[in-house]
Amino acid sequence: MADEVILLDHAYSPPAVRVRIALKEKGIAFESKQEDFSNKSSLLLEMNPVHKQIPVLIHNGKPICESLIIVGYIDEVWNEKSPLLPTDPHDRAHSKFWADYIDKKIYTLGRAVWTAKGETHAAAKKDLISSLKILEAELGDKPYFGGKTFGITDIALIPYYSWFYTLEKFGNLEMNEECPKLVAWGERCMQRESVSTTLHNQYETYDFILELRKKLGVE
Amino acid sequence: MADEVILLDHAYSPPAVRVRIALKEKGIAFESKQEDFSNKSSLLLEMNPVHKQIPVLIHNGKPICESLIIVGYIDEVWNEKSPLLPTDPHDRAHSKFWADYIDKKIYTLGRAVWTAKGETHAAAKKDLISSLKILEAELGDKPYFGGKTFGITDIALIPYYSWFYTLEKFGNLEMNEECPKLVAWGERCMQRESVSTTLHNQYETYDFILELRKKLGVE
Repeated sequence: MADEVILLDHAYSPPAVRVRIALKEKGIAFESKQEDFSNKSSLLLEMNPVHKQIPVLIHNGKPICESLIIVGYIDEVWNEKSPLLPTDPHDRAHSKFWADYIDKKIYTLGRAVWTAKGETHAAAKKDLISSLKILEAELGDKPYFGGKTFGITDIALIPYYSWFYTLEKFGNLEMNEECPKLVAWGERCMQRESVSTTLHNQYETYDFILELRKKLGVE
Repeated sequence: MADEVILLDHAYSPPAVRVRIALKEKGIAFESKQEDFSNKSSLLLEMNPVHKQIPVLIHNGKPICESLIIVGYIDEVWNEKSPLLPTDPHDRAHSKFWADYIDKKIYTLGRAVWTAKGETHAAAKKDLISSLKILEAELGDKPYFGGKTFGITDIALIPYYSWFYTLEKFGNLEMNEECPKLVAWGERCMQRESVSTTLHNQYETYDFILELRKKLGVE
């Protein structure tokens, strides 16, 4: 019997984008079910009763939650193609460290840049640039974070590449000046079919954020 | 050549306690170097320049940071004894989910219970009890979170067992009434040498927190 793979999904959600890219890297066919955040499906509430958040991967009826845990699961289950984590334990821990760093920093700080005002906005912008520069230093002159191979750290960060224009507009900054190597890395990732067929372009993302700000009542 | 295993450590740090328990479960000899948070060592700043936080495991000169990543690393490197994660990918993802849940909830909410005042304190207490009850439901009638085997979810939570008396005092609550199964689970874990030789007792922890509150200027 073929695997049944369902993703509780949202087009613009960075964590959901990670899972879609991982599945495509592995060549896994899956059904994407778009969730409406203002009216969550009974399936989502049943499959992730603790956090009630997407993404949830439902593999043969069993749910897996939290995007980086899902990416690790995908790598373990479909382990014959396109490894997403290194095999050496130290290299694995190193990749997980950076994916975790991205998880803790970029979403929250990025969101504050396009929602907050005044001192909160200024502090978030400063922290975001600092965090991106730390990531730029970790990338260095390597093609991908893990070296020659596209992997979990790239997957953790690449959804935010489509937010760069939004961050530039609301942060009044130039990504090419702040983090030229990250911009080049983003362009390199976009040459992969798994990424280019998943990410919205930066202007579409900006339009989505403009609409979202209106819904959230951010002026 | 024998492995050189050094832990940049602190006696009362829940994340550091996790790592010590994992090393003891595996029977790994290690050197614990206590860190002074007000005067961090040059070794800590060199080994964890990003977060500058303990615990850091230094294995044959190479650092691994973030407690749950370290526990995963220990399980992968010393894989012949006392598995800390299940082998089945879905069970592994399930264990990681709950360890991550503990990581995101218990430290922050617990700290707010012994530092915050007024509405912030009341909200943290309510959220903490709710989170502990969710964990109690997940544990159910199993001896350990993963079933019969002591594993990463137990390791993630057990440091907080020594904080239960502190939470009772500052939260004005009775753990035995709120979460009797978690209390019984904590007592069960304390029968393991890896745990009983690592955790401070609950009154020592309370005294430590009283001192820490003074240092932090919390009245």
